Amino acid sequence: MFANNRITNLLKIKYPIIQGGMVWVSGWKLAAAVSNAGGLGVIGAGSMEPALLVEHIEKCKKATSQTFGVNIPLLYKFSNEFIDICIQQKVPVVITSAGNPKTYTEKLKQAGIIVIHVVSSTVFAQKAEAAGVDAIVAEGFEAGGHNGREETTTFVLIPSVVKTVKIPVIAAGGIATGSQMLAAFALGAEGVQIGTRFIATLESSAHENFKKIIIQGKEGDTMLMLKKIVPTRIYKNNLYNKIAEAEHNGATADQLKSLLEGENKAKSGMFDGKVEDGLIEVGQNISLIDEILPAKKVINQIIKEFEENLNRIKSEF
Amino acid sequence: MFANNRITNLLKIKYPIIQGGMVWVSGWKLAAAVSNAGGLGVIGAGSMEPALLVEHIEKCKKATSQTFGVNIPLLYKFSNEFIDICIQQKVPVVITSAGNPKTYTEKLKQAGIIVIHVVSSTVFAQKAEAAGVDAIVAEGFEAGGHNGREETTTFVLIPSVVKTVKIPVIAAGGIATGSQMLAAFALGAEGVQIGTRFIATLESSAHENFKKIIIQGKEGDTMLMLKKIVPTRIYKNNLYNKIAEAEHNGATADQLKSLLEGENKAKSGMFDGKVEDGLIEVGQNISLIDEILPAKKVINQIIKEFEENLNRIKSEF
Repeated sequence: MFANNRITNLLKIKYPIIQGGMVWVSGWKLAAAVSNAGGLGVIGAGSMEPALLVEHIEKCKKATSQTFGVNIPLLYKFSNEFIDICIQQKVPVVITSAGNPKTYTEKLKQAGIIVIHVVSSTVFAQKAEAAGVDAIVAEGFEAGGHNGREETTTFVLIPSVVKTVKIPVIAAGGIATGSQMLAAFALGAEGVQIGTRFIATLESSAHENFKKIIIQGKEGDTMLMLKKIVPTRIYKNNLYNKIAEAEHNGATADQLKSLLEGENKAKSGMFDGKVEDGLIEVGQNISLIDEILPAKKVINQIIKEFEENLNRIKSEF
Repeated sequence: MFANNRITNLLKIKYPIIQGGMVWVSGWKLAAAVSNAGGLGVIGAGSMEPALLVEHIEKCKKATSQTFGVNIPLLYKFSNEFIDICIQQKVPVVITSAGNPKTYTEKLKQAGIIVIHVVSSTVFAQKAEAAGVDAIVAEGFEAGGHNGREETTTFVLIPSVVKTVKIPVIAAGGIATGSQMLAAFALGAEGVQIGTRFIATLESSAHENFKKIIIQGKEGDTMLMLKKIVPTRIYKNNLYNKIAEAEHNGATADQLKSLLEGENKAKSGMFDGKVEDGLIEVGQNISLIDEILPAKKVINQIIKEFEENLNRIKSEF
């Protein structure tokens, strides 16, 4: 086994790599591919309706015999139904985010489900531990999509959370390569959650245009925006320009919301491929990703780079 | 020798730790203490007048026989005179920032001075390499004080710069502990520049009130502000509240500048100790620093933590 630690033991996985559950791009195909390759595949429920989630869970079960999970943003309108679906379907792992971990943790644990909660601060990590979750995903400012208000980066967040809680910590935000995974472990993490890198895979349900943005994107091409609504890291396209201009001029939350009205801008951008006028939620790491690969190859590459960098460090000191 | 790499060899120092040259807080006392403890001490010239810089260099030379440096922000009104002073005084290392590395690099190198340039992006790192500098400090979004417009964090910036340039890279931003130093090396850095941690030392010229803020500061207590002038990470005090309100309402650059008029707000906050109404430039790491120590003890502690974390990683894999 690559890493015999609390995360690989808890989740019964070979590599302590958790695939981030992301809206519109991470269905059963990606989750099953990641689980079959030795990581934890995760179905992103935040863009699904209940019947579709059931379908994805059933397909995922058929496609892999390994541990997989479902990510449920707790503020989503179907979160209550999703919790019941995961219990009925005996989903092995539920990753909750964007909400209070107290609400469902006990119910899920009583059903024998492993619960992991995503936080953006040390204070929230303490609350999640107190709520009884099994592990924490601590996600830094560089991550794509929804983000914390304090803007704490992975470099600063991880050592603080590790120092404060006793349960294992999974680092997220800014991790797409093996050297970044090693850095996360240096900071005390026992696992990594990787989002953006898995969008640019054959198995993700992202539109090809979105995948192309990830492999062509450069440093500085994303920015944390919409802080008056929910801070969200997005790609700089036409829609970004409109948001940036409005924010520059002091637009209110309502004025910003009006820019997002009409068709679902996230679906339109990430799933339907309208990459200039849709909302493209993606992390800073697009600058480091330059190839669309099968998920299995992504994992093997990250582990290979991790080991190369580990050997480099060992030889340097 | 702790690390026999291109940075320790270039600078003839024991530990690849560069003390950030910071305005108002890093004079000859701090620089000499860091150099005597095995790092590279750096006089921050950005808040000095020419005669004062000469005085600090002369005192530093008397206080240490080890390599030390001077940090010169190139946009500062005295930068031209400072370059000449460093040449006359045979300062071993000049670290330039906030400006074009082409302007003075050749002149400094011809005088036998080692030149290091601070950048916030990979594109700027390439320009600095092309200008002939000996090494790069790549500084992430989590750093205190002036900051890049692209908001790239240390986790994402360092691997990109390391992959792109051939000269050695020193990581900065978010580094105050040994685990963070190890993480920087995992990302490919060969040295670290540490700022905020050295403000909370006996030898820094920061006002005691400022030092107290660093040891009491919590996660989320700093924010990157003033993006319409120069993006600057500051502590959340009364002045911050005024800036935040103005920015929320879409204030122009001129309106923001008017909030900074009158007495020198950086001096007032950091040197004179008016920590509520002054500008407190400081990094996210204040959440991880809880003791005012001699600079030598800071370095020894970081190296000890580095080695502990290195041994932990070695035993885990």
